[in-house]
Amino acid sequence: MRILVANVNTTAAMTDAIAASARQVASPGTEIVGITPRFGADSCEGNFESYLAAIAVMDAVTRYPAPFDAVIQAGYGEHGREGLQELLDVPVVDITEAAASTAMYLGHKYSVVTTLDRTVPLIEDRLRLAGLDARCASVRASGLGVLELESDPERAVAAIVAQAREAVERDRAEVVCLGCGGMAELERAVSAATGVPIVDGVRAAVTVAESLVRLGLSTSKIRTYAAPRRKTVTGWPLNPT
Amino acid sequence: MRILVANVNTTAAMTDAIAASARQVASPGTEIVGITPRFGADSCEGNFESYLAAIAVMDAVTRYPAPFDAVIQAGYGEHGREGLQELLDVPVVDITEAAASTAMYLGHKYSVVTTLDRTVPLIEDRLRLAGLDARCASVRASGLGVLELESDPERAVAAIVAQAREAVERDRAEVVCLGCGGMAELERAVSAATGVPIVDGVRAAVTVAESLVRLGLSTSKIRTYAAPRRKTVTGWPLNPT
Amino acid sequence: MRILVANVNTTAAMTDAIAASARQVASPGTEIVGITPRFGADSCEGNFESYLAAIAVMDAVTRYPAPFDAVIQAGYGEHGREGLQELLDVPVVDITEAAASTAMYLGHKYSVVTTLDRTVPLIEDRLRLAGLDARCASVRASGLGVLELESDPERAVAAIVAQAREAVERDRAEVVCLGCGGMAELERAVSAATGVPIVDGVRAAVTVAESLVRLGLSTSKIRTYAAPRRKTVTGWPLNPT
Amino acid sequence: MRILVANVNTTAAMTDAIAASARQVASPGTEIVGITPRFGADSCEGNFESYLAAIAVMDAVTRYPAPFDAVIQAGYGEHGREGLQELLDVPVVDITEAAASTAMYLGHKYSVVTTLDRTVPLIEDRLRLAGLDARCASVRASGLGVLELESDPERAVAAIVAQAREAVERDRAEVVCLGCGGMAELERAVSAATGVPIVDGVRAAVTVAESLVRLGLSTSKIRTYAAPRRKTVTGWPLNPT
Amino acid sequence: MRILVANVNTTAAMTDAIAASARQVASPGTEIVGITPRFGADSCEGNFESYLAAIAVMDAVTRYPAPFDAVIQAGYGEHGREGLQELLDVPVVDITEAAASTAMYLGHKYSVVTTLDRTVPLIEDRLRLAGLDARCASVRASGLGVLELESDPERAVAAIVAQAREAVERDRAEVVCLGCGGMAELERAVSAATGVPIVDGVRAAVTVAESLVRLGLSTSKIRTYAAPRRKTVTGWPLNPT
Amino acid sequence: MRILVANVNTTAAMTDAIAASARQVASPGTEIVGITPRFGADSCEGNFESYLAAIAVMDAVTRYPAPFDAVIQAGYGEHGREGLQELLDVPVVDITEAAASTAMYLGHKYSVVTTLDRTVPLIEDRLRLAGLDARCASVRASGLGVLELESDPERAVAAIVAQAREAVERDRAEVVCLGCGGMAELERAVSAATGVPIVDGVRAAVTVAESLVRLGLSTSKIRTYAAPRRKTVTGWPLNPT
Repeated sequence: MRILVANVNTTAAMTDAIAASARQVASPGTEIVGITPRFGADSCEGNFESYLAAIAVMDAVTRYPAPFDAVIQAGYGEHGREGLQELLDVPVVDITEAAASTAMYLGHKYSVVTTLDRTVPLIEDRLRLAGLDARCASVRASGLGVLELESDPERAVAAIVAQAREAVERDRAEVVCLGCGGMAELERAVSAATGVPIVDGVRAAVTVAESLVRLGLSTSKIRTYAAPRRKTVTGWPLNPT
Repeated sequence: MRILVANVNTTAAMTDAIAASARQVASPGTEIVGITPRFGADSCEGNFESYLAAIAVMDAVTRYPAPFDAVIQAGYGEHGREGLQELLDVPVVDITEAAASTAMYLGHKYSVVTTLDRTVPLIEDRLRLAGLDARCASVRASGLGVLELESDPERAVAAIVAQAREAVERDRAEVVCLGCGGMAELERAVSAATGVPIVDGVRAAVTVAESLVRLGLSTSKIRTYAAPRRKTVTGWPLNPT
Repeated sequence: MRILVANVNTTAAMTDAIAASARQVASPGTEIVGITPRFGADSCEGNFESYLAAIAVMDAVTRYPAPFDAVIQAGYGEHGREGLQELLDVPVVDITEAAASTAMYLGHKYSVVTTLDRTVPLIEDRLRLAGLDARCASVRASGLGVLELESDPERAVAAIVAQAREAVERDRAEVVCLGCGGMAELERAVSAATGVPIVDGVRAAVTVAESLVRLGLSTSKIRTYAAPRRKTVTGWPLNPT
Repeated sequence: MRILVANVNTTAAMTDAIAASARQVASPGTEIVGITPRFGADSCEGNFESYLAAIAVMDAVTRYPAPFDAVIQAGYGEHGREGLQELLDVPVVDITEAAASTAMYLGHKYSVVTTLDRTVPLIEDRLRLAGLDARCASVRASGLGVLELESDPERAVAAIVAQAREAVERDRAEVVCLGCGGMAELERAVSAATGVPIVDGVRAAVTVAESLVRLGLSTSKIRTYAAPRRKTVTGWPLNPT
Repeated sequence: MRILVANVNTTAAMTDAIAASARQVASPGTEIVGITPRFGADSCEGNFESYLAAIAVMDAVTRYPAPFDAVIQAGYGEHGREGLQELLDVPVVDITEAAASTAMYLGHKYSVVTTLDRTVPLIEDRLRLAGLDARCASVRASGLGVLELESDPERAVAAIVAQAREAVERDRAEVVCLGCGGMAELERAVSAATGVPIVDGVRAAVTVAESLVRLGLSTSKIRTYAAPRRKTVTGWPLNPT
Repeated sequence: MRILVANVNTTAAMTDAIAASARQVASPGTEIVGITPRFGADSCEGNFESYLAAIAVMDAVTRYPAPFDAVIQAGYGEHGREGLQELLDVPVVDITEAAASTAMYLGHKYSVVTTLDRTVPLIEDRLRLAGLDARCASVRASGLGVLELESDPERAVAAIVAQAREAVERDRAEVVCLGCGGMAELERAVSAATGVPIVDGVRAAVTVAESLVRLGLSTSKIRTYAAPRRKTVTGWPLNPT
């Protein structure tokens, strides 16, 4: 089974880190392929960048030259998953949703700890649209940008642990999701410091994608996610370079 | 005051029709400028096309060479408004939201009658995110595609009137919104046939945009819609042709 | 176009202030007429007073001797708008709703800062009934009574700014509505102090009322707001003096 | 214990019928006193009439010349209960709420069958504000006016039974509330015809009022329902005749 | 009228206290019979114990050798009420629900103060299922176990008063429910200290049960709570000793 | 990895069928062990039977004499999962939740088709508590009892297909969950007849359980699902035979 893990930003090192993390939980027969968009921001921290990423991920995935069995959109709280579902016949898994639905098996309420304050509403909105917000205790920001997570992992762990503790003690979360595609390596440290299960979206999404493939299930094509109608589409596939 | 009215598809004739309809309700001193995206689908009827339009509208609006006071995104149930709000300092008005909030002044419940069945969930989701769904009785599809509205207006009126009546009688709507950027010309006929107020999103949005400008109000820049952070964005502005 | 702006209390000086504020945003051709109820409390700060005002406003508006095009009910969180809608054929705009729906164009979440703690639940309930509460971050009280706003404007600004800041920082509001008919003059000062858009309900309502008139739209008469049935009504019109 | 049962309309015969029905379930030591407003409509079937009734009931109850232990507001879906709670120290029970909370002990979902279609939204709104709507399957209209219930009881039973059956079969209600102060006498017939428990609001409210008195509980006075502040109130008590 | 008051734990002294408290508000003709389960935990403070209690209460109630008119399940936030409703033809009243629906007559929002932090989610879930959560401001834990309430009443009062004050001041509750079957004796002290109405679930449930009997109402048997179908049930009645 | 799949009824043939179905999707290294309760009903079709099953499953699982890595509760809409979570350190997966969260990856809305009408509210309630109801279009009953599914598979398929079609066409579901532990064999036939993805809860739960184990995640023990406190528990373990 081949699973494409699509980073939402153009930072190839982050794609590699995400793919490496995904491989740690993939089943023996699963090939994980990291995909980096050809265009867009080097980190996604807002709606403009996220909308651009939505298109860039569709561009990258539909250009992929070989068959694949599932796609993971490895951006937390990002736009675009619905478009991919229309374009593809294989399952599409958003890490925001995979993390949330995994967390819901583990405790009564969960929280998300993400990067910047400005991305909190994006995550809240995606969870609401996904219908996975009823047991979300809070979405909290660590105050660190996406790229700072990698450049200063110690500070990242400290900032995330601080917010995870607040989530547990004040918001009554019993599980914490790491709200960024690039946080997987922090999972163990945050778990040790807080004593609650920590869910990384990418890793959770790998197991979800494998599960859907194994169950022989894919996106329903009867209404919302039917393939686009035949029509004139100017400038697609995009040629942005 | 200059208001940009951005069509979400590449059909210039539809941009013209939308702009003409907008001008009918604009105040004397208001200049309405219709904007057609450089790329994208000739009609938006699904998520892929809508995500592409989101970017194409941001592209077209940010390329506009003169000052303007407000932007109307003239697609019903489409993605993208949040991105425009980040990129601009002037108010951005989505016609889905303008129609709904206008309708809510006029009756206890409202319904939306749109084009194809597959676009119903997009509209429902946009209303839910906008927090304007609590008094939405239903979103109904006429079964006609976007471009069929113009090519066969008699059939369009009949199909929309049929669904509007169901909305009133079964779903208990007291007001009906026309759920497509290109339906404005049908307003009078549908109103006459159903006896309830009919709200066209583009016209409603013109009055909302003028109101915000007159009140001296624009998008809050403190969190969700702050300008994008300075960073490397590859391939933007797009060069898709 | 003539718009009646109905104060909900019997303090004529407050009617004048409200009408003056309304005139500042009214279009050139719009005449603003302030209306003061013949009976009721000199300030509305609770349910009893608000119910009395509901009737007093209906009394005052239906006694108005000349034609008019729209009515604004200039009480925040007050009862009565539904009754006016039954009695009139022209649009009726409640300032609580006008402020909220205007605020929703400007930010992801909004808060209301009102007068006394005891009026908070009235505002919450009106927003809930109006279906405009989903994006309301909080309703906060400044602790000042309605009439204190005018008698001590400096203290009023300070108290409102303090709560507006809490709304932004703790409740994550991005826009703040001034939750009282008589707060319009504070708009600029509060905006300057907090850095977020401040919405005054009366001013917002003027633009909404003008918009509805310009769009040729008024209350749906098919169900909830149909004219009262013909029947015996004792003691109405009221003769309370 | 003395309980005032306040009719919301001016039809004295209906007050008598309501009071008689109330007496059938009152405890031995309980005196039921029927109260008829001095002014208002001879039946309440809309917002204007209901707002007028709100004031008329407050007027009638506060004029009552002897002590009493509780008040029942015997109008279904009517405005005003909150005002009475401010004016009084004894418990106030609204029959809409008493019926709903009683029905919720008896089945998974309940419906309300009321009089005219136009009153359905009033009842829905009151249940929503009361927080008693989550298990409400539907509010249905029999199509009969308030006064027709008494003038043609056979037709009334048939119309109510028809809607109650729809509520059970289509809306999945397991209990039905009679949505009008004057329907108590129909309880048995409707129950026999449908096979589900039928709740009359007035009778339910009598037991609730007695319960609150027996428990020594009354309205909390710390915030929402505190007594009105001391201030100038013109024209109250009303002198409408 | 005979009402069975079923304790959910095996501590007979607590059954006695509950029954004594129930008798204080029971009507003259009402016999209160305390029931202690034959098996289960000596206090219920979690799901396992609560599920066991659900069965133990069904066991105890169905073994009761004489006729009875209603059953009160005297555990706060416990499982099982729905099973009893299937097995019995008489009304079943859960004290969690009786307290909440009684509190809702008394103030705009109510809170619950219970024992241990771990039982908070159970109570929240029961209120949510019961559709009585919309006006619940908070469920707070005093930190004391069920059996500590009796062993150290002074400390219990202090801990509960502290949380009740927080509920009123921070969560804006106007009424407080005592969230445990064994708290009835604390009612007066907590009320005196906080100035808000305090609702004890057992006492409230007695008046609800009497009310339902007096109204001639019992559980609807048409769907959810129909008697179990005839089938093979191994090991029931249980013989756990 | 060893996963216990606990049937909720005492019909051993059904346990075997469930386990066989589970094995079809289990990974190579996974051992599926079917567990049949020692007591309870031969089919669970209501609250009494479900509460009994909750205890019987806890009894059976805690008696299992060897180590295991996860437990699947293979009853649809049944009580008890929360109790197992307290008693165990390994993940517990309820098939109602596994089916719903799997379905949510596949379409905009999903429906459940279950057995008898009387079990619909149980499923609705479990989905609501699980916070997985926001995208549930409907829960529909085929009218067949649990044991009829096996005794007459052709009729079962026809009845389920009929309801699945209604779910898709009327309720707008895009995915259908088979709402009973014993329906797995019908999956292919129903999918072929309806054209939408069909989710069997047991199979979905196997992949979820494997995923959680692979991710090294288990139930959070800090609050709701902490191990029971040490205390006197009479009659447990149960000895019902």
